[in-house]
Amino acid sequence: MTFADAAAHLVRIGQRFDARGWVMGTSGNFSVVVVQEPVRLAITRSGTPKGELTTSDILEVGSEGTSIGATPGMPSAETRLHLEIVSARPAAAVLHTHSIWSTLMSDRFGARGGVPIQGYEMLKGLAGVTTHEHREWIPVLENDQDIARLAMKVGNTLREYPDCHAFLLRRHGLYTWGATVQEAVRHVEIVEFLLETVGRKEAAPWRS
Amino acid sequence: MTFADAAAHLVRIGQRFDARGWVMGTSGNFSVVVVQEPVRLAITRSGTPKGELTTSDILEVGSEGTSIGATPGMPSAETRLHLEIVSARPAAAVLHTHSIWSTLMSDRFGARGGVPIQGYEMLKGLAGVTTHEHREWIPVLENDQDIARLAMKVGNTLREYPDCHAFLLRRHGLYTWGATVQEAVRHVEIVEFLLETVGRKEAAPWRS
Amino acid sequence: MTFADAAAHLVRIGQRFDARGWVMGTSGNFSVVVVQEPVRLAITRSGTPKGELTTSDILEVGSEGTSIGATPGMPSAETRLHLEIVSARPAAAVLHTHSIWSTLMSDRFGARGGVPIQGYEMLKGLAGVTTHEHREWIPVLENDQDIARLAMKVGNTLREYPDCHAFLLRRHGLYTWGATVQEAVRHVEIVEFLLETVGRKEAAPWRS
Amino acid sequence: MTFADAAAHLVRIGQRFDARGWVMGTSGNFSVVVVQEPVRLAITRSGTPKGELTTSDILEVGSEGTSIGATPGMPSAETRLHLEIVSARPAAAVLHTHSIWSTLMSDRFGARGGVPIQGYEMLKGLAGVTTHEHREWIPVLENDQDIARLAMKVGNTLREYPDCHAFLLRRHGLYTWGATVQEAVRHVEIVEFLLETVGRKEAAPWRS
Repeated sequence: MTFADAAAHLVRIGQRFDARGWVMGTSGNFSVVVVQEPVRLAITRSGTPKGELTTSDILEVGSEGTSIGATPGMPSAETRLHLEIVSARPAAAVLHTHSIWSTLMSDRFGARGGVPIQGYEMLKGLAGVTTHEHREWIPVLENDQDIARLAMKVGNTLREYPDCHAFLLRRHGLYTWGATVQEAVRHVEIVEFLLETVGRKEAAPWRS
Repeated sequence: MTFADAAAHLVRIGQRFDARGWVMGTSGNFSVVVVQEPVRLAITRSGTPKGELTTSDILEVGSEGTSIGATPGMPSAETRLHLEIVSARPAAAVLHTHSIWSTLMSDRFGARGGVPIQGYEMLKGLAGVTTHEHREWIPVLENDQDIARLAMKVGNTLREYPDCHAFLLRRHGLYTWGATVQEAVRHVEIVEFLLETVGRKEAAPWRS
Repeated sequence: MTFADAAAHLVRIGQRFDARGWVMGTSGNFSVVVVQEPVRLAITRSGTPKGELTTSDILEVGSEGTSIGATPGMPSAETRLHLEIVSARPAAAVLHTHSIWSTLMSDRFGARGGVPIQGYEMLKGLAGVTTHEHREWIPVLENDQDIARLAMKVGNTLREYPDCHAFLLRRHGLYTWGATVQEAVRHVEIVEFLLETVGRKEAAPWRS
Repeated sequence: MTFADAAAHLVRIGQRFDARGWVMGTSGNFSVVVVQEPVRLAITRSGTPKGELTTSDILEVGSEGTSIGATPGMPSAETRLHLEIVSARPAAAVLHTHSIWSTLMSDRFGARGGVPIQGYEMLKGLAGVTTHEHREWIPVLENDQDIARLAMKVGNTLREYPDCHAFLLRRHGLYTWGATVQEAVRHVEIVEFLLETVGRKEAAPWRS
């Protein structure tokens, strides 16, 4: 994929998720893999409102996570998490949203270490899942401002749960990815749907 | 109706329901009857995001559920359910949405086999209903990945409840239809409204 | 106001309220006073989706509630309620929305005959209200398919509560009005806001 | 900043917050600092729907809070609160939203005098905050129709909590500001996100 195509994808993704209220303030960050080996990512600039991205808000970074392209500015503070994910999974894109329901569920299930989800047809929107009887475990990691340490934990989690399609940072939000850009977008929508559904059921008097 | 007109309807329906959050990921599927006898449907392609449909995402299928038109690709995995509905009801369109509230209510009322709804003015938006005192029973079927078996159960349910305007698949979502495309769209909005209303009341401390 | 201007207002109002989810299906109906004496209203046609109104969906009716203009079709089934309101209040427009929260609150407070609201700054958006300490009483009438009888009850309610800015039909929705079209729109937004706020508080564990 | 640029900012902010449902009716008011010393603000006119602002709805006011520009009309009734904020903080813009969740949380935490928020990554969107472990205290002031008296209390509150990024008026809504217009918009989105998140958690059975 060219850098220009990757940037155009990220601009549109930002508009879509902003309309859903999943990237309030300047939260969220997104990347698309431009070159796989050695890795080069197109990634959102730090501190940008995602509904109003322009291609000048998209930076190119290499495996060290520093900007190597023509666009000035700092890449997302969480660039290392993106790099960790693309090194552990065959991902064409990594998307981090920061919705109210992903925040709430990461908190509610944080002490258990993950959110178990089973029995929903929507699970079939996750790559490779063929039945609603599938049990998805969405690991929850404690949030950490030391990004190098957090990246290491992310790597460990991805190895520990080789089949997981997403993870949550506690009181912080959702990370997911996909083998194509479209699949990554789909995974965000699927997991956000499932977390809101689980959350509303957890809050309901008929939950038990 | 021409196939082109049917496809244009489906594109607009997808945009509308996507804006409401009822077809997250690539969930949901829609069809419009192009020819009644022998039946031909315009139906959404499997795996497409419904807010971004183009006419190239609309396939033509016959009574066997296989593609018979010029557009390449696989028709929706649930095409047989659409065919079952149009054979049992005088439907011009069949619409399947996959909202959070229809998912929650299909789960909450699944063990009872259906959702009883009575007393709401909005019921009058269902074809043939003339008073809010009407009692609608929305059957809930257990979800099943064996679509032939599920289609048979759908046929049985439509015969058992000849007056029902919609049914739910458990933890999966809503199917409804209409004698015109407009009526089918209206039925989706009516039933989604009613399920959210019933759901919020069920969750409220004043429910009993 | 010319009929054409009135119709243009109604089209825009429909788009706005549809985006908020307050006129699902073909619910809701709106009118604007074209002539005060003898009264002539521009009113939405029965059975139209309010987000997609065109001026051909707007009819002109006289004091009998029957169509007297050039546009074919049936005026809203609730035209008599609109006429009752404009005869009892100095209204330039009457707007009926059918939201989830107005439906829920009309149900929850129906047995008490009204919803008491006090202490909210948003109350100052109601005409003539100058302090959040104002106590608004929003009467709730039992729903009735006999529109002539319901219109009589509406007239009685408006006389009994000469200061009320709106009323609810139980499990049916909100009616409000305004001395200008803009004021009527504002009243809808204010009352819908207040009903959702009251409803979420009623559902919360800290309500008491 | 020129007055024209300030007015253009305010128009766009109104559209954005209206789409989120945070400025229903004619609620909310916004200002941008045009000159710092002696202060001149571009501020929204009283009684305007914020989603439909035009530049003719933006007035220029001086330190007395009265209109000094060419646009006719009355500045927002809460102009003195804006002036109090810009005199106490290095603010380029002051934004007041009136959302359902800020109303609910101002009520729920009013008796405690403030909303404590800690542990959320989204807090890092507040200027100068570098860790989710930050504890933000959002003071809640009793609402008051005597704006001069309320302005004095606002001044006292800003001095008492020199590090606060926002405050709430009880059952009235949110005030926040920023060193740039973009920062003020970001602060609104961050605080609205946090208040809804805290509110949904407070309402959940797992809160304790």
